[in-house]
Amino acid sequence: MSLNEETLRALKSELLDALEHNDAQQEPLAGRLAEIRSADIGQVLEEFIEDDEQLHAAIAILDVLSTERAANVLGYLPGESQLEVVGELSDTQVLKLLEEMGSDERADLFNLLDDDRREALLRRMAHQEREDLKRLASYEEGTAGAIMTSDYVAIASGMTVSQALMRVRQTAPDAETVYQLYVLDGDGELVGTMSLRQLMVARPGAVVDDIMIKDVIKTAVDKPQEEVARVVARYDLLALPVIDVDGRMVGIVTHDDAMDVAESEATEDIHKGMSIGQLEDGVSRVKLWSLYRKRVTWLVLLVFANLFSGAGIAYFEDVIASQVALVFFLPLLIGSGGNAGAQAATLMVRGMATGDVGVKDWSKMLGRELLVAGSLGLTMAIAVAPIGIMRGGEAVAVIVALSMVAIVLFGSLIGMCLPFVLERFKVDPATASAPLVTTLIDATGVLIYFTIATMILASV
Amino acid sequence: MSLNEETLRALKSELLDALEHNDAQQEPLAGRLAEIRSADIGQVLEEFIEDDEQLHAAIAILDVLSTERAANVLGYLPGESQLEVVGELSDTQVLKLLEEMGSDERADLFNLLDDDRREALLRRMAHQEREDLKRLASYEEGTAGAIMTSDYVAIASGMTVSQALMRVRQTAPDAETVYQLYVLDGDGELVGTMSLRQLMVARPGAVVDDIMIKDVIKTAVDKPQEEVARVVARYDLLALPVIDVDGRMVGIVTHDDAMDVAESEATEDIHKGMSIGQLEDGVSRVKLWSLYRKRVTWLVLLVFANLFSGAGIAYFEDVIASQVALVFFLPLLIGSGGNAGAQAATLMVRGMATGDVGVKDWSKMLGRELLVAGSLGLTMAIAVAPIGIMRGGEAVAVIVALSMVAIVLFGSLIGMCLPFVLERFKVDPATASAPLVTTLIDATGVLIYFTIATMILASV
Repeated sequence: MSLNEETLRALKSELLDALEHNDAQQEPLAGRLAEIRSADIGQVLEEFIEDDEQLHAAIAILDVLSTERAANVLGYLPGESQLEVVGELSDTQVLKLLEEMGSDERADLFNLLDDDRREALLRRMAHQEREDLKRLASYEEGTAGAIMTSDYVAIASGMTVSQALMRVRQTAPDAETVYQLYVLDGDGELVGTMSLRQLMVARPGAVVDDIMIKDVIKTAVDKPQEEVARVVARYDLLALPVIDVDGRMVGIVTHDDAMDVAESEATEDIHKGMSIGQLEDGVSRVKLWSLYRKRVTWLVLLVFANLFSGAGIAYFEDVIASQVALVFFLPLLIGSGGNAGAQAATLMVRGMATGDVGVKDWSKMLGRELLVAGSLGLTMAIAVAPIGIMRGGEAVAVIVALSMVAIVLFGSLIGMCLPFVLERFKVDPATASAPLVTTLIDATGVLIYFTIATMILASV
Repeated sequence: MSLNEETLRALKSELLDALEHNDAQQEPLAGRLAEIRSADIGQVLEEFIEDDEQLHAAIAILDVLSTERAANVLGYLPGESQLEVVGELSDTQVLKLLEEMGSDERADLFNLLDDDRREALLRRMAHQEREDLKRLASYEEGTAGAIMTSDYVAIASGMTVSQALMRVRQTAPDAETVYQLYVLDGDGELVGTMSLRQLMVARPGAVVDDIMIKDVIKTAVDKPQEEVARVVARYDLLALPVIDVDGRMVGIVTHDDAMDVAESEATEDIHKGMSIGQLEDGVSRVKLWSLYRKRVTWLVLLVFANLFSGAGIAYFEDVIASQVALVFFLPLLIGSGGNAGAQAATLMVRGMATGDVGVKDWSKMLGRELLVAGSLGLTMAIAVAPIGIMRGGEAVAVIVALSMVAIVLFGSLIGMCLPFVLERFKVDPATASAPLVTTLIDATGVLIYFTIATMILASV
């Protein structure tokens, strides 16, 4: 979600205006900014930053905010925009901002900086801070490690409930969440978890080990982020603890970050459904060269795949020459088959992604698709038959109606089965995109159509 | 996410086995069930319920669980399965379960029951409980009201911090979340909010009104659920308060429910991208008749839309008859244009859904698409030109290459612009589905291809 255009425009001009009339006490700008949510300020700044002439306005606004607030606002900006801002700031200013950012966002921004800047900043950090940042920045993008934060509340095994509560109060300002607590043993291994709710109703003298849940839902640092998001969603978690290869707890993925991952994974799936590769940024910001590359690969591959349809047509050139009216129905028939097949493929791919459909459901799904696609084919044949009579007489009508049933049925079965076949061979089922499926069905449809035509025309 | 098939199969046979050897003390089943998470038990039960012969096993397992746990497990089942279970239970048993369910899940289940059962249950409820249930059950599906829960922690304006903390401890077992607290005035109006974290570090004698945040992010009871989910995601909320038409607070939507909504909305968008209507249930469970209806509407509409392609072909029948080799490239050219156009449309529709693209970005997007689609068309023309030479000589190669550039460029622009046009006329931009876009491009492609062919063939 984002602010609607009117609100955004009004806010922009209001802030620019306030900026102009800003005095040494930074009124009225500071007062107005205090009333606006960080996410919304972020959106305004993003617009300012995109427009080179107003970059200075973005910097000036960040300057008026407290460092903590500025770090917060910065966290809402896309990486590219963060870089632009940081490019305008001194090392000292950047260090202050980094310090106030969440450890996950800090690592993300750090990863975007060039080597010189990184070195310069690292040199000025305290040892502990430096090691923490280097570690978090080292995890591969798209894994649990890359989206986790190390700002969680760790409770030492053996602590009492009142000691744990004290610890919660102390760490409250820095932790991403204080509502789920993690009990670690002397080696840093996660031995249990409890909610703050449990802690608050427990007897103050009790030992945390006696009230914690020992069977903790957790994930490994190298697990793909979409899997992490699904675990958080399935078990309705506030946060999911992350464990390194040695079994030590290294961070948590919070529910809000999991939700962001779910959204970007949905976008990726939707794009993949049209054979578009994973974009590094939103479609309005991603570099044109990258957008071209992510779209061109499959488009060109499918040009060659489409030659099969052409070859089919070439094979039947005589039939076509003798009855040119048949070409009238060609786009309609293969188009209809492609549409039905793309529907079937999409239903399976999404069903697999959400866990609604498993490989074991293959035969059940096949039976269902046979019935549904058969009915769809019949309905569409009835729709097209009268047009067949009008354009080419009864024989053509029969050819077109029969072809419609056959093409829609086969097309749907191809679309339905392809994701299962891909999954079986360990290929992402989402590769069964609409363009791939329709191309396959185009070729099949040409063969079916002209075979039926040849047979029926020969018999009349 | 769901359990993988092996785990699921093992768990099923283990539970069936335990069920068989269950004794009066309900060992070993009870012991084993205590170790399994509710979401996972839910998945096993769902399988049992789908298989009519094992419905009794599902009931027996629920019977072994405590009512609270059983209610929790029930909440993980799809509505249809919940109905099957409830059909096997007495009113007394159902009442007990309903009492332990979250108020939102209770209302959902209640809405699925038939009138007689509903009346019978309502008659046996306490007044307050009955009114609460009737109110929650009355909100339209797909709105904030339908997904909210009334189990939140309300703090009376004027309370001290220590009084508020006491209230948190008292309501902890029943509330969906105790981590975000809502301050209401005497009329039930929401005047502020605070996190438990804030409350815990505040001075015990302070009045909550002095520490609460007065500018609360909230939503109206009739707001569409996808908007609710987006607000939760944008502002990283644990819960979003819901207000009725009179300004009174009536419930909260929690982060986990918002995440579920986001997932089902993504599924809906993905289906819509293939012209499939909104399914009432997962694709593996939805009724076949419903699946047919949700797929057939657009398929039949597009059969008629495809007649335009046919009409185009009929218009050029003479050109085709004189140069049948041109038909060879027809599926390839209109297929390529359709693929590129569907990509462009999908990028815009998703960009609009996530807020990355707004109506105001139209001209910027057009410029970007011109460049990218032009490059794509050129690349694909280069790929197809040699085949043109092989199949039909130089003239055909020129025709095919020029057509490819023009069709891909026009197709992409149609695909890109259609969502903006729809949005402008207050139609859901997602209506610009791949099937609709490819059908439009098929017709355009036929015209472009044969017009270019006519011109070039006439000049040689």
